[in-house]
Amino acid sequence: MSRSYAILGTGAVGGFYGARLQRAGLDVHFLAHRDYDHIAQYGLKVLSPAGDFGLPTVQVYVDAAALPACDVAVVALKTTDNHRLPALLQSCLKPDGVLLVLQNGLGGEAAAARIVGPNRVLGGMPFVCANKTGPGFIEHIDYGFMTLGAYDEDYTARGVTGTMEAIAGDLQRADIEIQLVEDLYLARWRKLVWNIPFNGLSVILDARTDEMMSHPATCALARQLMGEVLQGARACGREIPESYIEEMLTHTAQMKPYRTSMKIDFDRRRPLEVEAIYANPLNAAEARGTGLPRISVLYRQLQFLDERNTRSL
Amino acid sequence: MSRSYAILGTGAVGGFYGARLQRAGLDVHFLAHRDYDHIAQYGLKVLSPAGDFGLPTVQVYVDAAALPACDVAVVALKTTDNHRLPALLQSCLKPDGVLLVLQNGLGGEAAAARIVGPNRVLGGMPFVCANKTGPGFIEHIDYGFMTLGAYDEDYTARGVTGTMEAIAGDLQRADIEIQLVEDLYLARWRKLVWNIPFNGLSVILDARTDEMMSHPATCALARQLMGEVLQGARACGREIPESYIEEMLTHTAQMKPYRTSMKIDFDRRRPLEVEAIYANPLNAAEARGTGLPRISVLYRQLQFLDERNTRSL
Repeated sequence: MSRSYAILGTGAVGGFYGARLQRAGLDVHFLAHRDYDHIAQYGLKVLSPAGDFGLPTVQVYVDAAALPACDVAVVALKTTDNHRLPALLQSCLKPDGVLLVLQNGLGGEAAAARIVGPNRVLGGMPFVCANKTGPGFIEHIDYGFMTLGAYDEDYTARGVTGTMEAIAGDLQRADIEIQLVEDLYLARWRKLVWNIPFNGLSVILDARTDEMMSHPATCALARQLMGEVLQGARACGREIPESYIEEMLTHTAQMKPYRTSMKIDFDRRRPLEVEAIYANPLNAAEARGTGLPRISVLYRQLQFLDERNTRSL
Repeated sequence: MSRSYAILGTGAVGGFYGARLQRAGLDVHFLAHRDYDHIAQYGLKVLSPAGDFGLPTVQVYVDAAALPACDVAVVALKTTDNHRLPALLQSCLKPDGVLLVLQNGLGGEAAAARIVGPNRVLGGMPFVCANKTGPGFIEHIDYGFMTLGAYDEDYTARGVTGTMEAIAGDLQRADIEIQLVEDLYLARWRKLVWNIPFNGLSVILDARTDEMMSHPATCALARQLMGEVLQGARACGREIPESYIEEMLTHTAQMKPYRTSMKIDFDRRRPLEVEAIYANPLNAAEARGTGLPRISVLYRQLQFLDERNTRSL
């Protein structure tokens, strides 16, 4: 029998991967909030360079308690909504079901493990360019592959397990390219090498990637911030080679002018994922005796800006 | 015979102190640029809670070469105009004349000493709230006292000298309260304890002092930045007690909502004094083996913002 999936959060990420899984014939259940009525009536639509498709009928729920117990629950909420997790995870998982956390930054797996236990949590890092442009309407722009892995409660790498391979198989059947990694925690730190400088500075300086890369001051600052991410990773037992910094900078300089996801959130006056992307890495390094002073400046600045930006909402 | 003064820069600071000196009967010569025509025709006016006054006739020059050689030349330019100093100082000083540098941050005295020699430079730190509200028109709002001192080429304190006392006497005759300090370099570092966090963050975060003091993140950040200023001072042989940090924070929390001078410059799209207030202290500490990572983040951010803000001018 094929695995069943609960998609917790039918935004761009949850909607895109969930719709692909349903199209591939899997039993998928979507949790939606504001968009529930629309999705219940019209289903989901995905506009994509890989082929548009619609799912006129989807199993959608507004109440997490109504979700059936599934084999896999996909956490596709923003980390700023993680206070909702305990309520959402009450009944959507079978006793041997697993959680797949698709969230930014650090700490998502740990937050999930505190609720369902440490050995039932996997993590994924979707690399996808997609937007929810309307209720039940996902615009897929580019990419889509996912890195999948896990680490244990003490942050040791778990290696590739049978459960990972089974879920990877489902996603591959849904035409999603999967990279299984031995050490998800390392993969998450590597992603922070880009996210920490560019997400934060794009908000603080109101700037696109090309503007930041074209000024020597912001280039130098990005390089120093990346160096601190490497220090943080090292404190947490993860070695990222110095050469990765130049690689990321070169890559960023060659990118098309890009507004980061954090800047898009800020401009829409949505809460920023400051805790997942800044506080949790800072705390992880600090707990191992390593201060990251430059990153902590960005963290404080973002807390101030985020609070002011969302205060009146 | 009374001393003659050349006022290099007839803005708020140069205009206020120069007009006071002339009113007290001293022989004062003003250098003006954009406002030359107006001042030549109408003189200077000072609106002040201590009494409004006008000087219908002032000795004003648009060409520095036309200035007579004076006993004291007062550098009241912004540090962002210091590239003009060598030309301005060609002929305005008598062979035994001295320079009085009234500039923000660090480095003003050193820049002047490179031109006229190390033993002819004094520095002053005016504490005055005044604006130039029109050509030749100074609005004095509050305060006015000045700290006066000097240090030698190797940054050792010079103590109080006869020259300082003579100039202090002139300023006191002009109703300006003077504090003579043994160690101007220490006094400048102490001022940076406030200026480095609040000037920079006010621009970067677009915030007044009360907004920064009312959020725990920015309070914590200001405290950490102040701690780095103390480290920088210590590297340069100047001890500022830790208690000074709490004193400054308490004082700032009690101030009326205040837009910093750097923020006012930024909002008027004027160049920011980033080199004097950030680069020079950073370099001074760095040269003595002490990195100030948090301050360096502000420095990079301000370079970027300043460049973008003034680019189209």
